[in-house]
Amino acid sequence: MFDTSFRTHVASASGGSARVKAVYHVADTVDQIEARAEAIAVEQSVEMPVAAITDRTVLEEIVGRVEDIRDLGNGVFEVHVGLAAATTGLEAGQLLNMLFGNTSIHSDVVLHDAIFPDELFLAFGGPRQGLAGWRSRSSATNRAMTCSALKPQGLDARELAAIAGKLARGGIDFIKDDHGLADQSYSPFAERVPRIAELVYAARVGDGRKTGYLPSLSGDLDQIRRQVEIARTAGLDAVLIAPMVTGLATFHTVVRENPDIAFMAHPAMAGACRIAPPFLLGKLFRLLGADATVFPNYGGRFGYSSDTCHALAEAALSPLGGLTSTLPVPAGGMTPNRVKEMLEFYGSDVMLLIGGGLLTAGERMIEETALFVQTVAQHSHE
Amino acid sequence: MFDTSFRTHVASASGGSARVKAVYHVADTVDQIEARAEAIAVEQSVEMPVAAITDRTVLEEIVGRVEDIRDLGNGVFEVHVGLAAATTGLEAGQLLNMLFGNTSIHSDVVLHDAIFPDELFLAFGGPRQGLAGWRSRSSATNRAMTCSALKPQGLDARELAAIAGKLARGGIDFIKDDHGLADQSYSPFAERVPRIAELVYAARVGDGRKTGYLPSLSGDLDQIRRQVEIARTAGLDAVLIAPMVTGLATFHTVVRENPDIAFMAHPAMAGACRIAPPFLLGKLFRLLGADATVFPNYGGRFGYSSDTCHALAEAALSPLGGLTSTLPVPAGGMTPNRVKEMLEFYGSDVMLLIGGGLLTAGERMIEETALFVQTVAQHSHE
Repeated sequence: MFDTSFRTHVASASGGSARVKAVYHVADTVDQIEARAEAIAVEQSVEMPVAAITDRTVLEEIVGRVEDIRDLGNGVFEVHVGLAAATTGLEAGQLLNMLFGNTSIHSDVVLHDAIFPDELFLAFGGPRQGLAGWRSRSSATNRAMTCSALKPQGLDARELAAIAGKLARGGIDFIKDDHGLADQSYSPFAERVPRIAELVYAARVGDGRKTGYLPSLSGDLDQIRRQVEIARTAGLDAVLIAPMVTGLATFHTVVRENPDIAFMAHPAMAGACRIAPPFLLGKLFRLLGADATVFPNYGGRFGYSSDTCHALAEAALSPLGGLTSTLPVPAGGMTPNRVKEMLEFYGSDVMLLIGGGLLTAGERMIEETALFVQTVAQHSHE
Repeated sequence: MFDTSFRTHVASASGGSARVKAVYHVADTVDQIEARAEAIAVEQSVEMPVAAITDRTVLEEIVGRVEDIRDLGNGVFEVHVGLAAATTGLEAGQLLNMLFGNTSIHSDVVLHDAIFPDELFLAFGGPRQGLAGWRSRSSATNRAMTCSALKPQGLDARELAAIAGKLARGGIDFIKDDHGLADQSYSPFAERVPRIAELVYAARVGDGRKTGYLPSLSGDLDQIRRQVEIARTAGLDAVLIAPMVTGLATFHTVVRENPDIAFMAHPAMAGACRIAPPFLLGKLFRLLGADATVFPNYGGRFGYSSDTCHALAEAALSPLGGLTSTLPVPAGGMTPNRVKEMLEFYGSDVMLLIGGGLLTAGERMIEETALFVQTVAQHSHE
């Protein structure tokens, strides 16, 4: 994937002095912002008074470095801090810890973005499947893709499978578990997943269209590994996971262990106001291997603006350190009558997720699903 | 620990209908708050229009239930939502997902508290060591305890061990790794931890005082298990971990697997404004097994108020579902001259953590540490 010149470049950059540039938005005053920026740079690196540090290597290579301060107006400043890449230990949880661990406790600072050195792109690796992986798993060779969600939790495996079967017969490209489906007593993972996969496959054989099913992973690394094996045994090759619930380290490890599985990331516990969504759900999840990223579309039941959604989709799709792309999946209270508008906004490299909007169709679920799929196909810019 | 009548009570409460009461603080208007509360109850349970649900069991036992709405003034309402305990699958990550997963994306909602049914106390189990475990690991049989932090990162194992040795010779009760120390190339865990343990033990033997050393765990479950084994082999019986970085599932599993190890929880990535600190760092970390909880003291370099700190210490120490207590560890820019005030505020069931304030002493580190320990001993209410 990377050519030789790229590797040479990485090798020289990893000589101990590569920096991650963390970009914070800080509410403060003109008088205070310089000292404040220094304080953040120290907090996110050595976390002690710099005057008490005597070691020259630590002072030169480890202490965070304020690289730029920009006045954004309205009492908000953009602060660029260079953090030593070596402090991340090239481990996903520690990367987030160094970017925002203690500073997340300051309510007036937002982690807005981070610029990664090549060393980190190579170490974390990004998506394995990306946009192409979703296309190869569906009939959507160049149109936008469709997705729905299995709900409500509380139903048993048989009832959920019946709903999945209807969505598949309607020709939906992908069905994902609601992120609330875990390993509950009323619908254990080991029972639910094979049963749903079976009905989804049955529908697939019936009319020649492909429908993929993504079970939701949860728990610790051992539990998630067992769930991936159950999914594999059921013939599945894509899953849903909420990285901020499982922890980034667990997420990254499971991605690395399963390069042939497509991972859709869910934003649960991603918060709204402290880490900018384009960075967290777009760039960081992509760095760690999300093949698709679900996020609340503008005008739905969450408060993301169209600017935020645009920036998020761009962070997921645009060139980034040689990484494969991450497919944007806008969701959250979407309805079929917004398809045209959403495709004009996102283009065709997108998966539209409509959950409740199809489930409310009741007896007409198959027809409504087919209509949704047809509308997407019609309006996709090929 | 639990008597028979308690178990009987639990058995009846776990018959499928036990509820977790989630308490949210929501910014909204008098006109909108009822509908908003309903929307949150639905979002955190079935996440689809209730009108489209036909299954009676789901409607009666799974759909979230608004139990109370209180006007707190200034446009903020307290909303009590009963969530089915069964939806948590009795798994730590999923518990947080059901409490706040999607609603964390709404910037105008704070997860303020949760009242757990006995079923959850029994399932998650709480601390194994608690206050008594820290006392038995130190010479502080009934006074307040002292702690310092090993920094700065970037030093190698030998240099960090030298600092630890000085703190131990000064008679500090506990030394914890800075939460930024992970498994970095300049100071790998496997090399650092045994070396530090050795110098801390050497100091201990020298003057009869006990000093404990807590290495910082990081990474995925496999990596953390290996780190715990390294710590055990080095003779250690306490560790530091940041549950919001590792993920709650990883944290809870490691706690469960190591009942004889005392776990100190660090607040990195705990945020400031979206989950109330007394709930997250006090009650929830305690439920999942934190034997001690580090938090930013009021008047330090973070913005917690004295009310927040008081509530947090109370949540950690006061009776809670038969759980062992969690030791409060106020920290974050503390200095020795605040000892008297802090002990008056927290009493003696506390561990005072001073990091940078001792490290800046340079040549006088042993003496300053001894003075800190002596001051704490003097002012502790026995």
